[in-house]
Amino acid sequence: MADFVESREWYLAAYCPEGVPTSDHLKLRTVTLSLSVDSIPVNHLAVETLLLSVDPYLRGRITGTLEGLFISQYQLNQVITAFAVVRVVRSNDSKYSEGDILLNSNASVAEYSIVPSSIITRKIDTSNGISLSDYLGSLGIEVLADPKPGSNVFISAASGAVGMNAGQLAKIRGCRVIGSTGSDDKVKLIKEEFGYDDGFNYNTETDFDAALSKSYFPDGIDVYLDNVGGKMLEAVLNHVNKHARIPLCGMISQYNKVWTEREGVRNLLNMVGKQVRMEGFMLESYWHRFGDFAKDMERYIQEGKVKSKNKINVGIEGFLDSLNSLFSSSNIGKVVVQVKA
Amino acid sequence: MADFVESREWYLAAYCPEGVPTSDHLKLRTVTLSLSVDSIPVNHLAVETLLLSVDPYLRGRITGTLEGLFISQYQLNQVITAFAVVRVVRSNDSKYSEGDILLNSNASVAEYSIVPSSIITRKIDTSNGISLSDYLGSLGIEVLADPKPGSNVFISAASGAVGMNAGQLAKIRGCRVIGSTGSDDKVKLIKEEFGYDDGFNYNTETDFDAALSKSYFPDGIDVYLDNVGGKMLEAVLNHVNKHARIPLCGMISQYNKVWTEREGVRNLLNMVGKQVRMEGFMLESYWHRFGDFAKDMERYIQEGKVKSKNKINVGIEGFLDSLNSLFSSSNIGKVVVQVKA
Repeated sequence: MADFVESREWYLAAYCPEGVPTSDHLKLRTVTLSLSVDSIPVNHLAVETLLLSVDPYLRGRITGTLEGLFISQYQLNQVITAFAVVRVVRSNDSKYSEGDILLNSNASVAEYSIVPSSIITRKIDTSNGISLSDYLGSLGIEVLADPKPGSNVFISAASGAVGMNAGQLAKIRGCRVIGSTGSDDKVKLIKEEFGYDDGFNYNTETDFDAALSKSYFPDGIDVYLDNVGGKMLEAVLNHVNKHARIPLCGMISQYNKVWTEREGVRNLLNMVGKQVRMEGFMLESYWHRFGDFAKDMERYIQEGKVKSKNKINVGIEGFLDSLNSLFSSSNIGKVVVQVKA
Repeated sequence: MADFVESREWYLAAYCPEGVPTSDHLKLRTVTLSLSVDSIPVNHLAVETLLLSVDPYLRGRITGTLEGLFISQYQLNQVITAFAVVRVVRSNDSKYSEGDILLNSNASVAEYSIVPSSIITRKIDTSNGISLSDYLGSLGIEVLADPKPGSNVFISAASGAVGMNAGQLAKIRGCRVIGSTGSDDKVKLIKEEFGYDDGFNYNTETDFDAALSKSYFPDGIDVYLDNVGGKMLEAVLNHVNKHARIPLCGMISQYNKVWTEREGVRNLLNMVGKQVRMEGFMLESYWHRFGDFAKDMERYIQEGKVKSKNKINVGIEGFLDSLNSLFSSSNIGKVVVQVKA
């Protein structure tokens, strides 16, 4: 490894309060980084980025406002950050060695960076084939929804990074699982590959209310993992059973609008009559359960009980397009940018 | 007690999907009821009504639709029902005697009725001065919100039947408690009588967002007991702290509208970022905690730590006006119709 490297990085050029972020907002630049031993402070590491996790919540970090969304904002002209798998290229911390593979939950979207080792989440074994941020939604449905055998479970964005794992875990738990997703191909995928009992395409099945009540949940909904918000959440609230649980993972249908323009949910009163629990969750609160959960997931994957689908986009230059792909119906599974092999 | 009595009762003449219910919808009639021993089936009781609890949720029972609200509907031409304290006048069940005072959570809004003893909730001691449905909100805030000393607690409809007790219980727990209510007099009441730290009149303080953030919750909201829904709930969600809890007791601002016309809450996404738990509750799920709770409340009342305010309207003929008083800003405290002394 040379003492100086050229590192491409994505930075925030302008906030984007609404609509689809473009190259006016996120731009790629090349910086020169010194990796000489003198340049790495004590308890810091020089790392190269291997994989970047592309997640919908990142959209919320470039709105430029805290109103309506409490996720911290990226700073103008600064490199943006994301979940990433990184490899140590130089270490100034005795706990880490060159070649270690680490999870960094607040990594620069850059080819190289120098980071304090205190922000490293954990060392990981990448040979198990499990992409780490897959676990987020899956863990949420376990912790907050605690689905029982026979429960009627509905999952939106059912073929997405979170939905695909959550749906399979609910099946392992003995639930009846229905998913909504954005194309007929993806409906086929969740049924044939991920083992959902049934599913529908929200782009063609536009009367959510009728679909949920008659076709898919004649006995009502016990658990809804909400990844989309808006009209789908409202429709679900018209068909929830008593003591239904609704873990809120994200609301991808709403991210490209300022909050005052978002679709209001008009029937929250149903939560009273049916004593529904709705709860937002973020991975940060569940790290203490991550280890056990990762072991379970590894076993399920080895046994073929959980299958994974990833869309690997090669090259850091594709980060913006990868982000925007999450908000179309085109994407299937977990989106990852491979920066380095 | 004569074998035949004249009994006035309120019945549903027509459903009222929106707006203020009138005498077109709820009507009073007089029926003749046989109380002879032969007329009372085995395990049934003849009772006279003493007190009727007038609660906002009753509005939801005359909309004529299950859409948007899962509270069961009154039937056309049938007597309506409510929480009530009743007294046994004839018993055909060895467990109950003439003169027993009972809580009936599904009592006819009538002077007299014959009821299966299986629907009786419990025998009660009316001498403790505690009106039973007062406990609902108070118990809810204990069970679902679990407020800690120093928590920042906000209560809407703060001088209402539920709010007044919940606010005082939160004070006993050592919280900082702020209330919203519908008049300056009621703001004075909650501060001077019920011990709230502060409060505001939602009819004059119309920018809820500014009021909550700057004046009342500079450190954010930890617990919100929601009795009103709509714009107030939306404003609260802009100022919640991490892991805030929102027990949903009811949404009185929304009851007189069909659900599709209700105010949509547009910022539920905040629940994700702040990991907020929102949960509806109904007394029916907490009967197992009612006994212990009632003992605590009795002690608090005897020690002067909890004060109560009731509006007693005398005469069954005033039931409709009493119900509608809940939806104006005119009402203070718990509304009760005294049918019989």
